[in-house]
Amino acid sequence: VALDKKIVAFVGGVGGAKLALGLTRLVPPECLTIIVNTGDDLWYYGLRVCPDVDTVLYTLSGRVNAVNGWGVAGDTQTTLETLRGLGDKDIAVHMLRTHLLQQGNTLTQVISHLAQAMGIAPTILPMTDAPVATMVNTLEQGELEFQEYFVKHRWQPTVTALRFAGAEAATLSDEVRDALANADVILFAPSNPWLSIAPILAVPGMQAAIEGRNVPRVAITPIVAGNAIKGPAAKLMGEMGYEVSPAAVAHYYGNVINGFVYDIQDNEINLEGLHAVALDTIMKTDEDKIALARLVLGWIETWEAL
Amino acid sequence: VALDKKIVAFVGGVGGAKLALGLTRLVPPECLTIIVNTGDDLWYYGLRVCPDVDTVLYTLSGRVNAVNGWGVAGDTQTTLETLRGLGDKDIAVHMLRTHLLQQGNTLTQVISHLAQAMGIAPTILPMTDAPVATMVNTLEQGELEFQEYFVKHRWQPTVTALRFAGAEAATLSDEVRDALANADVILFAPSNPWLSIAPILAVPGMQAAIEGRNVPRVAITPIVAGNAIKGPAAKLMGEMGYEVSPAAVAHYYGNVINGFVYDIQDNEINLEGLHAVALDTIMKTDEDKIALARLVLGWIETWEAL
Repeated sequence: VALDKKIVAFVGGVGGAKLALGLTRLVPPECLTIIVNTGDDLWYYGLRVCPDVDTVLYTLSGRVNAVNGWGVAGDTQTTLETLRGLGDKDIAVHMLRTHLLQQGNTLTQVISHLAQAMGIAPTILPMTDAPVATMVNTLEQGELEFQEYFVKHRWQPTVTALRFAGAEAATLSDEVRDALANADVILFAPSNPWLSIAPILAVPGMQAAIEGRNVPRVAITPIVAGNAIKGPAAKLMGEMGYEVSPAAVAHYYGNVINGFVYDIQDNEINLEGLHAVALDTIMKTDEDKIALARLVLGWIETWEAL
Repeated sequence: VALDKKIVAFVGGVGGAKLALGLTRLVPPECLTIIVNTGDDLWYYGLRVCPDVDTVLYTLSGRVNAVNGWGVAGDTQTTLETLRGLGDKDIAVHMLRTHLLQQGNTLTQVISHLAQAMGIAPTILPMTDAPVATMVNTLEQGELEFQEYFVKHRWQPTVTALRFAGAEAATLSDEVRDALANADVILFAPSNPWLSIAPILAVPGMQAAIEGRNVPRVAITPIVAGNAIKGPAAKLMGEMGYEVSPAAVAHYYGNVINGFVYDIQDNEINLEGLHAVALDTIMKTDEDKIALARLVLGWIETWEAL
């Protein structure tokens, strides 16, 4: 594996953070840029919370136990005891982020500061500095904010459509634009393509900046043996009328990717113009994460021989 | 002691909270209103902090150990570790207060909500809903914000003058006005007259609303045997040219009070038109606090016989 290639990885929360951890153990930090979904970001009692960014920060700094999710349930009473339950959730990070944002820093600058404070060397970028909010339209409850759908309703309502509020006014940051322009490899972590990757692709100019690069652009399946590794991906695919399969994921990515990694448990995928390979994509231990990163990068190396 | 009198007590931080605790054990909550200095309030990383109000809330709800003071040192680096050190300081209270203020509630409403959440029955009122900031002019450092003077510089600079920024635009809340209009007794806790009580009296209309009431208006000395029980009161008196004595405190209060409690360790006070009594004013245990409240109220009862 050539470790001096510039790699950009698009990630959501937990699954994305796993791949990111594997990559950080293989790729020199100056060659690795991780672009994170911010569609789930929220204000909570005056504090700015970025769930996916924080999952990546905590995972890469070895503090992953600090991530418990945010119980922002709309029907919870505003009591002191509710807030006191937040003690474990590293309020300090949210306070510092809120403070730095209020001082006029961009989210990109703030995340850079936090990553540095946590001793994280690779570059971690939000998908955009503009506010973009993932809205989930459901059959039973109408349109819900992402946290309502995910935490309060535990992703049980039937999803009929997704909307990325604010995306139309968002722009690519210089940092994201430069990272993509200089990338030798572009990866899509096994995050939820609809809830975690779609908001990233909804930023105007993002898709063109990716598709315009004649480099390996590879997605890793979040669907294995008809199920999601974690979370609502499989349930959501079914509700939105997709076949629940890695092939359907690859098809959904369309021209954004030219390579796809599916799991060894699944059937071979043959899509025209798409490099595809079966690998063991299940990441439980840190060794698994490093191994998958190594296998994916190694496989991409072989393309040049084709 | 007649316990059905309506009592208003003006308090600052620790010393005031001690008297407040004694009063709550003697006076039915519907008869007790505690008006608290908010001149030390501050914004800290987007959270609104009210040091004196919180000292009273924590003391009356039995959570006094949560009060460690706020280390808002201007030369501390903005690091995550600094903020993580705040874990003990009940961030939940500051988050909820900030949230409720941002929703448009007055500070009076917010404190009422917090007091209720903490199970505190007497009425606790901020001196005003307007922002008033105690500014300390010093010989060595020029003008300092109160927290800079008190925490960062540990009240070591020489005080030359005090200013209550914003006071000229502040107004009496209806709640403070009503409490004073209906009071049978008005007390000034043994708080720092210059740093804790003066900002309260600087709210336009406050002094007139107090002096206009023909009821016992009694201050308890914070100076005993030439020293302050706690904090910078004695040092500050000397620096500002006062004799460091209970008599000087009584004189400073002037027409605001018509009664004064000094300590049994000090010389008899004779000021024209002023009721004065020597009591044991040192409050260490909860029993001391209740005893002093009882003695003060009992002494006030005897005035009627005069």
